[in-house]
Parts: sequence; structure tokens; C-alpha cells
Amino acid sequence: MNANGNLFRGIVVADIDRANPASIDGLGEAGTATVSEAMSRTGVMDPAIRSVVPGVRVAGSAVTALCQPGDNLMVHIALEHCAPGDVLVVAVTSPCTDGYFGDLLAESCRALGVRGLVIDAGVRDVAALRAMGFGAWSRHVSPQGTVKATAGSVNVAVVVGGQLVNPGDVIVADDDGVVVVARTRAELALSGSQQRLAKEAVLRSRLASGELSTDVLGLRGQITDLGIRTVGHLGQ
Amino acid sequence: MNANGNLFRGIVVADIDRANPASIDGLGEAGTATVSEAMSRTGVMDPAIRSVVPGVRVAGSAVTALCQPGDNLMVHIALEHCAPGDVLVVAVTSPCTDGYFGDLLAESCRALGVRGLVIDAGVRDVAALRAMGFGAWSRHVSPQGTVKATAGSVNVAVVVGGQLVNPGDVIVADDDGVVVVARTRAELALSGSQQRLAKEAVLRSRLASGELSTDVLGLRGQITDLGIRTVGHLGQ
Amino acid sequence: MNANGNLFRGIVVADIDRANPASIDGLGEAGTATVSEAMSRTGVMDPAIRSVVPGVRVAGSAVTALCQPGDNLMVHIALEHCAPGDVLVVAVTSPCTDGYFGDLLAESCRALGVRGLVIDAGVRDVAALRAMGFGAWSRHVSPQGTVKATAGSVNVAVVVGGQLVNPGDVIVADDDGVVVVARTRAELALSGSQQRLAKEAVLRSRLASGELSTDVLGLRGQITDLGIRTVGHLGQ
Amino acid sequence: MNANGNLFRGIVVADIDRANPASIDGLGEAGTATVSEAMSRTGVMDPAIRSVVPGVRVAGSAVTALCQPGDNLMVHIALEHCAPGDVLVVAVTSPCTDGYFGDLLAESCRALGVRGLVIDAGVRDVAALRAMGFGAWSRHVSPQGTVKATAGSVNVAVVVGGQLVNPGDVIVADDDGVVVVARTRAELALSGSQQRLAKEAVLRSRLASGELSTDVLGLRGQITDLGIRTVGHLGQ
Amino acid sequence: MNANGNLFRGIVVADIDRANPASIDGLGEAGTATVSEAMSRTGVMDPAIRSVVPGVRVAGSAVTALCQPGDNLMVHIALEHCAPGDVLVVAVTSPCTDGYFGDLLAESCRALGVRGLVIDAGVRDVAALRAMGFGAWSRHVSPQGTVKATAGSVNVAVVVGGQLVNPGDVIVADDDGVVVVARTRAELALSGSQQRLAKEAVLRSRLASGELSTDVLGLRGQITDLGIRTVGHLGQ
Amino acid sequence: MNANGNLFRGIVVADIDRANPASIDGLGEAGTATVSEAMSRTGVMDPAIRSVVPGVRVAGSAVTALCQPGDNLMVHIALEHCAPGDVLVVAVTSPCTDGYFGDLLAESCRALGVRGLVIDAGVRDVAALRAMGFGAWSRHVSPQGTVKATAGSVNVAVVVGGQLVNPGDVIVADDDGVVVVARTRAELALSGSQQRLAKEAVLRSRLASGELSTDVLGLRGQITDLGIRTVGHLGQ
Repeated sequence: MNANGNLFRGIVVADIDRANPASIDGLGEAGTATVSEAMSRTGVMDPAIRSVVPGVRVAGSAVTALCQPGDNLMVHIALEHCAPGDVLVVAVTSPCTDGYFGDLLAESCRALGVRGLVIDAGVRDVAALRAMGFGAWSRHVSPQGTVKATAGSVNVAVVVGGQLVNPGDVIVADDDGVVVVARTRAELALSGSQQRLAKEAVLRSRLASGELSTDVLGLRGQITDLGIRTVGHLGQ
Repeated sequence: MNANGNLFRGIVVADIDRANPASIDGLGEAGTATVSEAMSRTGVMDPAIRSVVPGVRVAGSAVTALCQPGDNLMVHIALEHCAPGDVLVVAVTSPCTDGYFGDLLAESCRALGVRGLVIDAGVRDVAALRAMGFGAWSRHVSPQGTVKATAGSVNVAVVVGGQLVNPGDVIVADDDGVVVVARTRAELALSGSQQRLAKEAVLRSRLASGELSTDVLGLRGQITDLGIRTVGHLGQ
Repeated sequence: MNANGNLFRGIVVADIDRANPASIDGLGEAGTATVSEAMSRTGVMDPAIRSVVPGVRVAGSAVTALCQPGDNLMVHIALEHCAPGDVLVVAVTSPCTDGYFGDLLAESCRALGVRGLVIDAGVRDVAALRAMGFGAWSRHVSPQGTVKATAGSVNVAVVVGGQLVNPGDVIVADDDGVVVVARTRAELALSGSQQRLAKEAVLRSRLASGELSTDVLGLRGQITDLGIRTVGHLGQ
Repeated sequence: MNANGNLFRGIVVADIDRANPASIDGLGEAGTATVSEAMSRTGVMDPAIRSVVPGVRVAGSAVTALCQPGDNLMVHIALEHCAPGDVLVVAVTSPCTDGYFGDLLAESCRALGVRGLVIDAGVRDVAALRAMGFGAWSRHVSPQGTVKATAGSVNVAVVVGGQLVNPGDVIVADDDGVVVVARTRAELALSGSQQRLAKEAVLRSRLASGELSTDVLGLRGQITDLGIRTVGHLGQ
Repeated sequence: MNANGNLFRGIVVADIDRANPASIDGLGEAGTATVSEAMSRTGVMDPAIRSVVPGVRVAGSAVTALCQPGDNLMVHIALEHCAPGDVLVVAVTSPCTDGYFGDLLAESCRALGVRGLVIDAGVRDVAALRAMGFGAWSRHVSPQGTVKATAGSVNVAVVVGGQLVNPGDVIVADDDGVVVVARTRAELALSGSQQRLAKEAVLRSRLASGELSTDVLGLRGQITDLGIRTVGHLGQ
Repeated sequence: MNANGNLFRGIVVADIDRANPASIDGLGEAGTATVSEAMSRTGVMDPAIRSVVPGVRVAGSAVTALCQPGDNLMVHIALEHCAPGDVLVVAVTSPCTDGYFGDLLAESCRALGVRGLVIDAGVRDVAALRAMGFGAWSRHVSPQGTVKATAGSVNVAVVVGGQLVNPGDVIVADDDGVVVVARTRAELALSGSQQRLAKEAVLRSRLASGELSTDVLGLRGQITDLGIRTVGHLGQ
């Protein structure tokens, strides 16, 4: 049992800090596109991580699991540390398409109040997940199961879909994809999102009435500034 | 302001020629598979460009935009030059997954009579697009937004999904994908499509009654010609 | 007509052995995730081969076709050798995205009692396939058609989605993907699947009542055995 | 023999216009990165089209071939229409990984003075191509051969690696990838390239002496303009 | 220990049949492109399985290993069953990028007379493999190591790069990729390859002297038969 | 200038902590495979990030840049904050294939003592980089250039190839790929690596003399423990 092993082996962190529930719910209502815009276009996971249950939108506090390829032991351990309102966020140490999560774990999540799953690997039993309306975002769908044999970690910082997720960060996920909001910036991201939503409501009604976005957003000057020529018709 | 800059800089072409509306609508009714067959299997975009709003089929005249990665300025400019019945076709100068188009632009399209969007990049707000039934075909879905800062072009020839699209070409798009029909060949493609549809109606009823396609299409001779042996059972 | 040509040319095998119908139907009821678990996580095709008609689950005996890129001649020939309850399984000799199968062939399948299609290439007319509820699993969707000009084989061993499929093997396919069961192991796979389903029913009700999977599955000892440390809170 | 067939069938164009040889050679000396910069970052093919013979750089006039998947007939026909100094540019009507071109065709190219090959599919015999030093750029390498059975075209406009190539356009290819220069802009692209090369020579010697690019290019003001804060050290 | 477990668990087969050494060596001299042509374009693995040690060509008898993701135990076991002249062929039960094989195993292969490695996963220590000139073909290169904990099989039929490999089949691998020849067809494939090589020698000298392949291969008639029009110049 | 903008806008951190030079160099000598093993198989970047200059191995302290797609401004700014022995590590806010770095920046790196570049996007001028022997690891190679117009950050935490990189972390990169070592664990990772290298030296000489790894590593017992059957020959 040398020091080296201790340092790089698995660890389970039982208690984490979470953002305040009202901010989390507010971010969920704003949705991924608005929230990421409010954060200057940051926090967006790799678009290859897709919703497997269309029409569902969730927001919650990240409880993270770091798993080995083909092994979902730490997903089970992570569930022990979930509170109602959480979202399970699962990373793997090397790329894997296997189905780490299926209808039984979704059943457990529902019982525990866990709002959804984001995983940088595969899920299965998607027909059941859809019937349950359980929100799941994954890189793959595969019937291939996993073992429960290898050490990993719970509630450590992980990278999922190219984004750093610290335990307690806010996860916002919908049909567009997944966005991560640092826990300490949740309120700021919310207020930015709300300002943006208000602005968009005005824009939407002007556009719906047939105004052009070049007018509404005042873009026409840029054409000139950028030196773009406008011609009537190309002789061809 | 040297000649070089002038030549390779952006340009906006205000007026384009379109195919006749009846041909466009006829091609839309025929659908992508039939239309591309009628053109000897040409015009099909890369199948990675997928419908994000299942069940929608559109046909329209291409108004093209050429954008920089992460910048949707020219999409806004292109909308100024759209007429009812057009389809917005967006290319990017290097591959990009960002969401160039969302619910606000879809609202504007609806107000302007634009029938759909084909983009060799990403879209967002797909839940809203689905609720609106607005036809959108894209390579990616991503909440990641774009800026409006760099020059591009409108109504120039672009390559989208590996196919050349000239402004005014007819775009046909459905759950199978996207097909481009050169403007000057729209009528020819339509008549070929209609001949094919008539033939298929006969085929369909014969197949539905249990006849084999090898009989209906007269394929059995080819087995002999190609020297394919037929055996009863493989001893294994 | 030398011996070499004979050996590597196409061959059509008319008669194949099938598993017993009750086993096939039982495997279909169990679904891909359960069946592959019962076979020690084997038989799962590449998850890139996806259902194009969500919500459909089929099981049947494989009738195989081996085609050239861009040529679906052998799909037609294979249909001659299909019996009610079969699933058409199509491999290509080099990767191809073309749409080998569409609504006309689906019509024929329906008339012949063929339950579904699994293809390591593309399909088309997916709107029609969805309207018919015809189960199709493919690597691609594309309007691009094929010709009928080159020799291939029917009812030979093929590789589809990285799995060997012998004619008469059982194909199980659903929203999770596709699993192959060797014909001679169908009953064994079924009995293993049924044992697993019984176990899962108990698990499901315990998890639904709020018990943790770490308790239900007895996983907590493994944390200690694997030397994973548990801590209360990370000072950060 | 209906009109439709005539229009979408194959065509071989025997005579094409070419850019002047000195411009072509000058563009080759400048290389892909410089030439595309001189054209405002346009003309770059999909970076998945890679050099299979490292260390070779070529420039030449495009003779184009449009082939069916798994069929290289039109490559042979295209060679009939090549002149010394040309580059063979091959597109396929749907994606294909097969090896369309190998050592025999390279031998023929060498005899005919053809400078290289750019293909949106596969090549083979790469050990021989490397031994010959014959420049080849392709999306794939594969031993899989092709047949010679289906119609295509020679010297029509094609799309390769997402770029439109008209016959006679200038192809510049090196270890970075492939760039297309429209025939009528070859001289303009060359003069822009040469201006850029002159500027870069100065830059290079200043950077080599240890000056910072932020000084040499005057970028430091932008930091301020963009509102980027600079801090000494992050307390962590 | 139920029957089910027995059937789907791992198995190690100690003794396998091999093709005769002279045929194997002859196939190696012919190379992958020629051998696959002699087998009517069959046996070619997915071109994503690439040579990581350029310039090496090997042929040998397949000793197969079937591994779990992230676990190379069965590679070690397989080496026990290798004879001089063999090629190690490794499949994984679900996709994995990890480095299953590195310089230590290559050292062991060299000592045992194993000629090369083909793996549908990753290798590492490629600088050492290149220095040793040890032939390795893999889908990935990655420093990520594996454990030695899970059951698999040795000398069972496996699928690698989309091709079925039975133990004792002949593997031919070079810079173009990897081809599998069924053991019982090795001599036939060799004689077909040798006929082809003889024909190609003649072709090569004719092409090198400047003759066109359309003449040498008699392709010009096909242009007419296929209804391809030839025109002098396109008015543009 | 609201608080929101301030928080999510770019920031440049001038001073960072680095690991001690002897540890860094020691890790470089050990190489990526050994170092990641010493860290229990952690820290390995996505294997799609490949060496573009074969044969080069580097280790250094990470100076990080976070860029927008198609914009390399922050690479220039990052160079101002590099010290001899550093490695430039570049992330982009959304996926991009463009060539952010070429021979001019490599020239500057050489003058400043920067040892290499790791970038989750593209590089260009690779022929020049190879001639200089400048170590560069990237996801893409592309001649496509970038602009210098948008805000980003320097020396913030970034995610590159799916791994978190904090400024000052140790980057080890060679022909196998790239590994990140947290700055505070550099010495521990080094001592683990050195123990491993010593063990491997013994292993290597035993394997080179023909001993089997199953004996040297004592793996044979596992076959029994895992219930794997061994049989002589499969009757087929």
C-alpha cells in the first residue's frame, strides 16, 4: 500500500455543496441555448452527447462518477450520495460505447428524486427510459452491459463531453444538448439568462410580425464596415 | 483596398432566378429518393445532414449564405433576400458544430414565407423548431451560439453536404435527407420523377400481393449471367 | 471459368435451418439488453447500427445477403428465400451509405411475413417505413439509390456491425440496437434470459421502493476490497 | 434513350482551359497555407483528405473524374485527357473507402507527366507510391479494388473534400492538405501569395531573434479593446 | 456453474491447423491489394485498421484472442499458443481505444517468432515498435494501459475490422491494410495472386512506356456501351 | 460593462507555478505510457490528438490558451507568458479543424525555449515543423488559417483531448500521444514511473530470452480462477 497508489486510486466524497434550488430551477426554465449565451458561449458539452428521451428538459446539481471502461460499479456508489434534485454525471477513463445505465437504475433514480443522467458513454433500455420520461443524455446507445469490478471515484472533478464538471455544478440539459454552470456562478448565469429571455421576447414578436433581423438587430451597417459588396444580379 | 481583397471578399447578390413554382412543388411531392433516382442518382447531400424535425418535407428555391465558423451574420443578411417559398442554404468556410439558427430565426422565416433551412453546421432550439413544425436539416445540433462579426457572402455558389448549390437551385428535403436539383433541370427532374412514381405504384401493388421483386423486375436472369451458383443446403 | 472464380464468386443457398419459433419469440420478448447479458455480454452489433423506426422490437431467423457497394441485387434475391418470421440481414463488401432498401421492399417484406431488416449500410423512404411500422436497423439513412448489376451471395456467413451472422441465427432488435444469437444456442440464451428477467422483476420493485442498488446488489463490500477511500467533504 | 437519361448520364469533355504554367508553378512554391491565406482563407479541402506520400508538394491543372462507388472506370478515361503538368482530381457519387488508384495507374501518370492525384475516396499500393515519390492525397487507404462497369463523367465540375473543382482549376497540395484555386484567379492568388511570402520572411527573422509576435504584429492593443483583464497570479 | 455459463464463458484452444508455409510466404510477397483482388475483392479489413510501423509487410497464421475492453489478459495467454510464423489477431468485445500491446509484448513476439500483430483496438510504445521494425496494425494508438482481470478466449473465431478470422487463417498485412485468407483457400488465393502479378508486370511496362490504360485494358468500347457522350469543349 | 460580462469574459494570468525542472525532465524520459501507468492509467488525452512530427518526445510546463473557433489571437498572447521549458496547450471553445499554429509561431517558440505544442484543433506548415523537429500534437492538420479578432483567455484551466489541464501542469508527449500530470503530483508520478521502468527492464530481458509473459507475470492461475476452459483442438 504505497503512497502512489493512495494518490491515484479511487475516492468517494460523501458531501458536496450545491447551488440554491431556485437558481437551478430558473436555469432549467431558461434552457441550454440561453444559459450558455449568458455565459458568453461557454459550458456547452460536445454535441455528440445527445438526448435519448426527446422532449425532456432538466436542471440539477451534478453528482459525479468516474468509471472504468465496461464497468459501472461507481454509478451504483454514486447513487448513494444523490439527493432529490440531483443529476448523475458519469465520465469514463477511456472511451466506451457500453450501456452503463438502464431501466433498473432509472427506476432507482426516480425513487431517489434524481432528475436525470448525463454520461460520456452509453445507455440502454431506451424504450423504457422513454416510457418513464426519464431524462438521459449520452454519447451512445448500446445493449452491451457492464461489470461491477473496478475502482473509480465519486464526486471528484470529471470531464464529460469536453467540459469540466465539479460536483455540485449545475447541469442544464434539453433537446439541444447539455450545459455546465459552475456552482458559484449559478446566480449570475441565471440573471444573465433572464435578461436575455426578456430581450428575446421582444425580438420574437417583432420578427413574427415580419420585420427583418437585419433591422431589428441593426446589422446592416456591418455589411458596409466589413467591405461586403452588394450587387443586383450575377451575370452568369 | 487592393484588387485581391475585392475578389475574395464577401459579396451579396440581391436578385436570383428561380425555377417555376409548380415544378418546385411537384419535386417536393415526389420526395428525395424519387427525385435523385430520376437524376441518375445524383444530387444527394452527405447523409450526415439529417432532419431535426421528423415528418416534415419541403421543397423550395435555394437562397445561399456562406459563413465563417462560429459566425452567423450572413444568415441574417440572407433573410433579407428571401422570398416566400425559398429554402435557406448555409455553408461554412471550415467545419463547425455551433448552433447558427434557432427559434428566433425560425420565427422570422415563418413570417417571411421561408420554407426551411439546410445547414452544413449546427442548429439549436430544436424543441421549439419541432413545436413549430419548421423544417430544418443540419449536420449538428448544439446549444453553442455564434457571433455576428465576420464577412461572408449571400447568393454565391456554395458546397453543402458535398453538393454544389447555386442560388435558385431547387432543394428537396425530407426524412431521408436532402437533394439538390439544378434550377435549369427542375422540369426534367420532375417529369422523370413522375414517370418513376407511376411505375412504382404498379410495382407496389404487385409486391403487396405477394409477388417477388425478382419476378416483377425480371432479375432472375442476372443470377445466371453473373455466374452465381444456387445450391440447396450447405453441409456444415 | 476457372476454379478460382468458382470459389470466390457469389453463391445462393436456398435452404437454411432455423431455431424453433417459440425460442425466437421468447428472445424477442426479452429484448436485446437481457439477451446479450444472458450470453455473457456477447453478440451485440456496433451501436452505430440504429433503429430507424423507434418503438419497434423484432426477433426472427436471419436470411443473409452479401452485396457490393451501391448495388442491392442480392437483397432482391434474398427475399426469394425468406419465410414468414425471418429477418433480412444485409452486409456490404466495403462501407457504403447508400439507401439499399425502401418502401417497395418493405411492402414486399410485409407480404412475405418478413419481420424486419438489419443492414450495415443505408435505408431510405424512412417516413414510409415509420408509417408502416416496419422494423429497420441501419448504419445510415440516405435517399441515394443503388443499381442491380453485381454478383454477391445469399445465405452465407456475413459480418454485420462487427458480429458474425450465420444464416438461421436469431436476430433480436429493438430501440437499444441489435443482438445476434447463434441458432444452436437459442434455447440456452432464452432460458438464461428468462432467469435474468425474473431476477430483475424483484430488483425493480425493491429499487422502486427506494432501496439503494448498493444494498440490493451487495456492492458496498467492494468499495473496501478495492481500497477506495470515502471522505466526508473535500476542502477546496 | 429519353432526354432525361441524356441529361444526367455521363459526359466526357476532351478539351479544357488551363491557367498559365508559371502561375501554377508559383502557387506550388507558395504552398497550401500561403495560397489559401492569399484567397481570404478559401479553397481548402476537408482536412480528412491527407497526403499519403509525405514530403511531396505539387501544383497542376485539374482534370476531373466523377466515379460511382467501387468503380474506377472514369479514372482510366480521364487519363486519356491529361496533359503533362495536370493533377487528376477524382470525386465519387457516394462515399467510398475503396482503393481506386494504385501503382499501375501511378506508373501511367508518371509516363504521361501527370503530377499527382487528389481523390475523395481511397488509394492503394501506397508503399509503391512512396517509393516512386508520386504525390497522392486521399480520404482513405485501402487494398480493396474496384470494378470498371458504370458510367461517370470526365472534366465536369465536381465536389472533392467539400470544395468545388472545375476542370482546369489549379490544385495545390502538400503535407498540410489540398487547396483549389479557380483558374481565372490563379494570377491574382499568386500575387497575393508572393506579397504574403515577402512579409513572412521579415516576420520570421524577427521572431527567430526572440521578438514576440504580440509586438511584431501589434496585437497588444486588442487585449485592451476586447476587455480582457490581465492579472498577476490566480490565488487558488 | 450452470450450463449457460459454460457455453458463453471463455475457452482456450491449444492446437490449431495452419496453411502450408510456402503458401503463406507467397501470399505475403503478393501483398494485400493483389491477394484481395485474387479473391474477387473479399477479405479486406476496415481501412481504419492502419499500419503503425510503415514499410513493413507480413504474412502468417492467425492465432486469435478475444478480449474485454481495457483488459489484455488474453493477449498474454494467446502468446503461449503461438508458433514461429504466426500473427497475433486481437478482437475486443466492445470498442476500445486503449493500448493493449507495447514494446514488452513485441519483445516477447520477437523471441517467439511471431511475425506481427493485428488488433481492433489500440497499441502503444509505437516509437519502440518502429525501432524494432515489428509489424503492428491497429485501429488506435494510445498510451492508455489495460488490466489483466477478465475472462476471454483464445483461438476462437473472431471479427476484426469487419472480417471474420478463424484461427489458422492467413493474415496478409502491409502499408495498404490487412487482408484475411481462409486457411483452406490459401493455395487457391496464392495461384490467383501469382497469375495476377504476371499480368500486372506486362501492364506495368506498357503503361511505363506511355500507352494508355484505356488501350491496354480495352476500355474504350465501354464508353460507347454505357452511352457516355464525348464532347470537345464545354461552352461556359 | 456589467458584472456578468466581467465574469465570463477573457482573462490573462501572467504568473503561474511550475513543477521542478528535474521532475519534468524525468517524466519526459519515462514517456507517456509509463507515466500514465504510474498514475493508475489516468491523464491520457483522447488518442485522436496525434503527433504530427514523428520521433519527438517532450515534457514541459503547460501554458494554456483558450481560443474561439477560427481565431488564434490568444495563442500569440500566451507566448508572451511562456518561459523556457514550457509547452503551449491550446483549447478551443467549440470544435475546429483550422490550422492555428504554423512555422512562424514554431520559430517564435524555438527562440523562446518553448518545447512543444498541444492543441485540440489543427496545425499547418507541418513540413516545416518536421524539418525543424518542433514537437506538435494536434487533432487536425489543415492549411486553413485563422483570424485574430476575438477574446479568450490565457493560463486558465482548460480541457484538451478530454483531460483537464491547469496552467503549470506537466505535459508529457511522444509518438503514443499526450499525458497530463497535475503539477502537485509530478514528483510522485516520477517516482512511480521510475519504479515501473526498473521492473520493465527485468521483464524485457526475460521476455527477450524467450520466457512467456504468462510465466513471468504469473498469469496462468487466473485462467483457472476465471473458469476459462482449455481444450486441445476444436473439432469443426
